[in-house]
Amino acid sequence: MITGELVLLKTSHRGKVREFIVKVSDEQLHTDFGIIELSTLADKVPGDTVVAHMGQEFTIQRPKMPDFFRHAKRTGAPMMPKDIGMIIAYTGLNKNDVVLDAGTGSGVLTMYLGSIAKRVVTYEVKEDFVKVARKNVENAGLDNVELRCGDIVEEINNIDEKFDVVTLDTQNTKDVIPNIRKVLHPGGFLATYSPFFEQTKEIRDAMDAEDFYDVMTIECTEREISFSARGTRPSTTKVGHTGFITIARA
Amino acid sequence: MITGELVLLKTSHRGKVREFIVKVSDEQLHTDFGIIELSTLADKVPGDTVVAHMGQEFTIQRPKMPDFFRHAKRTGAPMMPKDIGMIIAYTGLNKNDVVLDAGTGSGVLTMYLGSIAKRVVTYEVKEDFVKVARKNVENAGLDNVELRCGDIVEEINNIDEKFDVVTLDTQNTKDVIPNIRKVLHPGGFLATYSPFFEQTKEIRDAMDAEDFYDVMTIECTEREISFSARGTRPSTTKVGHTGFITIARA
Amino acid sequence: MITGELVLLKTSHRGKVREFIVKVSDEQLHTDFGIIELSTLADKVPGDTVVAHMGQEFTIQRPKMPDFFRHAKRTGAPMMPKDIGMIIAYTGLNKNDVVLDAGTGSGVLTMYLGSIAKRVVTYEVKEDFVKVARKNVENAGLDNVELRCGDIVEEINNIDEKFDVVTLDTQNTKDVIPNIRKVLHPGGFLATYSPFFEQTKEIRDAMDAEDFYDVMTIECTEREISFSARGTRPSTTKVGHTGFITIARA
Amino acid sequence: MITGELVLLKTSHRGKVREFIVKVSDEQLHTDFGIIELSTLADKVPGDTVVAHMGQEFTIQRPKMPDFFRHAKRTGAPMMPKDIGMIIAYTGLNKNDVVLDAGTGSGVLTMYLGSIAKRVVTYEVKEDFVKVARKNVENAGLDNVELRCGDIVEEINNIDEKFDVVTLDTQNTKDVIPNIRKVLHPGGFLATYSPFFEQTKEIRDAMDAEDFYDVMTIECTEREISFSARGTRPSTTKVGHTGFITIARA
Repeated sequence: MITGELVLLKTSHRGKVREFIVKVSDEQLHTDFGIIELSTLADKVPGDTVVAHMGQEFTIQRPKMPDFFRHAKRTGAPMMPKDIGMIIAYTGLNKNDVVLDAGTGSGVLTMYLGSIAKRVVTYEVKEDFVKVARKNVENAGLDNVELRCGDIVEEINNIDEKFDVVTLDTQNTKDVIPNIRKVLHPGGFLATYSPFFEQTKEIRDAMDAEDFYDVMTIECTEREISFSARGTRPSTTKVGHTGFITIARA
Repeated sequence: MITGELVLLKTSHRGKVREFIVKVSDEQLHTDFGIIELSTLADKVPGDTVVAHMGQEFTIQRPKMPDFFRHAKRTGAPMMPKDIGMIIAYTGLNKNDVVLDAGTGSGVLTMYLGSIAKRVVTYEVKEDFVKVARKNVENAGLDNVELRCGDIVEEINNIDEKFDVVTLDTQNTKDVIPNIRKVLHPGGFLATYSPFFEQTKEIRDAMDAEDFYDVMTIECTEREISFSARGTRPSTTKVGHTGFITIARA
Repeated sequence: MITGELVLLKTSHRGKVREFIVKVSDEQLHTDFGIIELSTLADKVPGDTVVAHMGQEFTIQRPKMPDFFRHAKRTGAPMMPKDIGMIIAYTGLNKNDVVLDAGTGSGVLTMYLGSIAKRVVTYEVKEDFVKVARKNVENAGLDNVELRCGDIVEEINNIDEKFDVVTLDTQNTKDVIPNIRKVLHPGGFLATYSPFFEQTKEIRDAMDAEDFYDVMTIECTEREISFSARGTRPSTTKVGHTGFITIARA
Repeated sequence: MITGELVLLKTSHRGKVREFIVKVSDEQLHTDFGIIELSTLADKVPGDTVVAHMGQEFTIQRPKMPDFFRHAKRTGAPMMPKDIGMIIAYTGLNKNDVVLDAGTGSGVLTMYLGSIAKRVVTYEVKEDFVKVARKNVENAGLDNVELRCGDIVEEINNIDEKFDVVTLDTQNTKDVIPNIRKVLHPGGFLATYSPFFEQTKEIRDAMDAEDFYDVMTIECTEREISFSARGTRPSTTKVGHTGFITIARA
C-alpha cells in the first residue's frame, strides 16, 4: 500500500468482526485492541497482517464500495444497493459518463456513481446533509465528485454543462423535469427514485409532457435465500417497499 | 463525433423507431430509407441530424450500454439488467477493478463489466460463443476485455494474476470455487449466478468449505408499474424467475 | 351416483385429458369417442369407469369447485383462485354466512361463495352477464345463489335484509360503500376487489368516511415452483398483477 | 342471541380496542371495566350494546373465524390466512366435503376447515398440542371436528373411511403420501404445506410415484398497501416466506 492509500483493517474478537478504514500515514489508529502505527502499512500488500501493540492481529484489505457504504454516516434512509444496481444497469452507467445528481442526502448513491463515472456533480438543499455527504465521499477516496448546496429546481437554470446521466431523488422531482433536456445529452438517461405512487405518477406526467423516450417505471424486490441444516427456503424476513425507479431517455 | 467513434442513428417511420449503431468512417450505411455517408457524421454532435439520400432524417446520439445490450447477438438467455445491476451494486464494481469472468456466453454481462471496470478477462468454453461475444464486445467499442476460449475449471490453474472481482455464470461453478482464492485479492468479491436451487446449494457448500465471508444469496425480482388513462397498477404481465445471485468475499 | 347428480367423466387420449361434466339422467352424452348413456352412471360410484359405445373408457368422479371453475363460461377476466382464497380466508366465510355479492360477472367468485355459504344474493348490471352466470351457477349444481339484474348502487336501497359478508367487484364500488352498513351485520366483513391504485384509494377514502374497522388492503401474488430433472426453481413465467383486495369490518 | 351462542364483546378504552368471546349463559364476565352478566345478552341482537356494572359500554357482535383465529392459543407458528385461503380455493373446499387433516398443531387450519366443511377428522402426534387445539376448536363453537392423537403415518392404515380433501402439514408428509389414495375419493384433493425446498421436493417425488394428477406447487406472497396523508405505497415491512403449498389430485 502507498502513502495516502485507503486500507481496510479487519480483526475478529470473540466471534465478532471489527473493522476500520484508515489511510496510510504517519498517524496512529487507537483501537480497543491497542494502537496501530499507520506508517507500517506502507510495506504491506492486501492479505498481509499487521499487529496492534497489544498483540491483536489485523488483516489488510483494499476497501471496496460496499465497505464505504457500510461505514457511511446516514442522514435518513439511504438508497439500497438493489435500487442503486437498477439505476446503474438501466442507465448503462460507465466510466466515460458525466453525471448530474440531486438530492445528495448522505451521498450513498453519489458514492456509487462517483466510483464508476468520470465525474459527478450533485446538489443537496440542506447544508448539514452536504457536510455528511462530503465526509462520506472523502472517506471513500473519491475526488471526482463535486458537492453543491442548493435547490436543484432553481440551480438547474444556472448549469451550463451537459450530462450523460441525471439521477434525481428529491421531493420536487416533477418540478425539475421540465428543465432536464437543457442539461442532458440527446440519448442520455434520466433516472428518478420516488417512494409513493402519487409522486411517481406526477413524475411520469412531467416526463410525458417533455416527450421523453422509453419511459419505464419499475419496482425492484430482493429476497434472500436462507441455507441451513434444516433446509433451504426464502428468508422468513423480508425488506418491504423502498421506492419506484423511473428511467427515461432524452 | 470523431473518426472511429460509435454513433447511434435513430429514425422513426410510421410510428416505429428504427436504429443503427455505426462507426464514423469512409463507409456507407444502407437502410430501407436510403444511404447515409458515414463520413458526414464527423462534423456532427449528439442531437444533430443527418439525412439519408432519399430524404429520411436520422438523429445522432452517443450509444450507451443499454443500446449495445439491445443490439447484441444472443446465444442463449442472456443475463437480465436487474441481475447485472445486483452484481455491480453488491460487488461495488468500479473503474479501478480488474475482473475475472466466466462463462462469457454472448458477452452481455461481460460488456457491462467492461464498460465499468479497468480490465476484464473472460473465459468461455464454446468457441462459437466466443466469436459472438467478441463481435458484441467489439461493437460496443470495448478494448479492455480479453476473451479466452477454455474451461475455467482447468484454466484457473494457469492464471497467475489476481483480480478484484470474479463473476461466474457456468454450469460447473461449484468446481471453480476451490481455486478462487488463488486468483482473488483478499477482500475481493466473488459473484455467482445459478438458475436452480440444487446448483445454488452446491455453490454455497463449496463456498462454506473455502471459508468465504459475508456469503449471501439473493433473488432479484423486478416489476413494471403501468400508467394509463384507466389508472395505475403493477403490470399484468411479469418476468418470472431468472437466477439466484450469490455474493461472497475472500 | 343418484339421478340428477353431477358427474365428472374423464378420459385420456394420446396423452391429452378430455373431460365432461354431466348429470345422471335418461339422456346421452355424444363425444368424439362415442356415445355414453347417462342413465348407466346411476349404478356407479366415484372411481368406477364407464365405456362409450366405441370402446373408450371414462373414469367417474364427483366434480369439485375447481372443475366448475375450469368449465365455466367467461365474460371477461374472472377473479383468480388466489384472490378468491384471500377473500374467503380474511372474511372467515363459513357455511352459516349469508353473502351479498356484486357485480357477478361470469359468476366465478359467486360460485365459490355459494359452495361455502348458506346463501348468496348477487347483483349484476349487464343482462347477458347474468345469463352466463346463471348457467355457470346451475352447472355447478348450486341452488342457494340468487342472481339479480340491477345496479347495486341503486338496488342496495331496496334491500331490507342483513348479510354477514359483502363482496364487491364493480367499477363504482366507492359509491356503494356509503350504504353498506345498512345491509351488513355489525362485525360483518366487506371485501372489495379493484385493479387500480386510484380506484383502491377511492374505496379506502369511502371506507374511512364510514368508520369501518380493521381496514386492510392487500395484494396477493402467487408463484409456481417448477420441479424437473434439471432442477428446482420458481417458474420462469409468472402471473402479474390482478387486483387489490380490501377487507373492512362494520 | 340465544343461550349457548357465542358472542363477541368489544369496547374501546383510551384508543385501544379490548374484546372478549363469551357464551350466553348464567355466568359473569369479569373485566378491567367491571362485571357483565352474560345472561343479559340473551335479549340482544348484534349491534346492540351491554353495559358493565362500572359503566363501560360493550358492543355485541357475532364472532367470525378471524376472531377465533386471533383469540386462538398458539403452539408454534400457525398457518397464515393467505396459505389457508390458497388451500381452500385450490381444493374448492365446500360444505359437502369431509376432510382428513394432519398435523393439527394448535388447530388454526383445522378451525377454518371445520367452519366450511361438513366434517373434519384431524390427527396430531403431540398430546399437549391436541389439548390446545381441542380448546381452540371448542371456543370456536365447532362440533364437526374430531381430534385424534396419533401419528398419521401409522394411523392412516387404521382409517376405513374416504375423504374429499386431505390436508397435510407434518414433517413426515412424504411418508403419508403412499397411503393417501386409500383414504381419498377419486378426483379428491390432497394439499400439503412444507416450509423447505428439500422437503417439498420429497413430497413431489412421492406424489409422482403415486401418479397423482394436476400436481402444482405454489408459494403465495401477500403485500399490504399503505395509505396515508403522505401517499400510497406498498408497505415498507413485509411478511417473508412461510411455506410452499402443493396441490395434487387423486
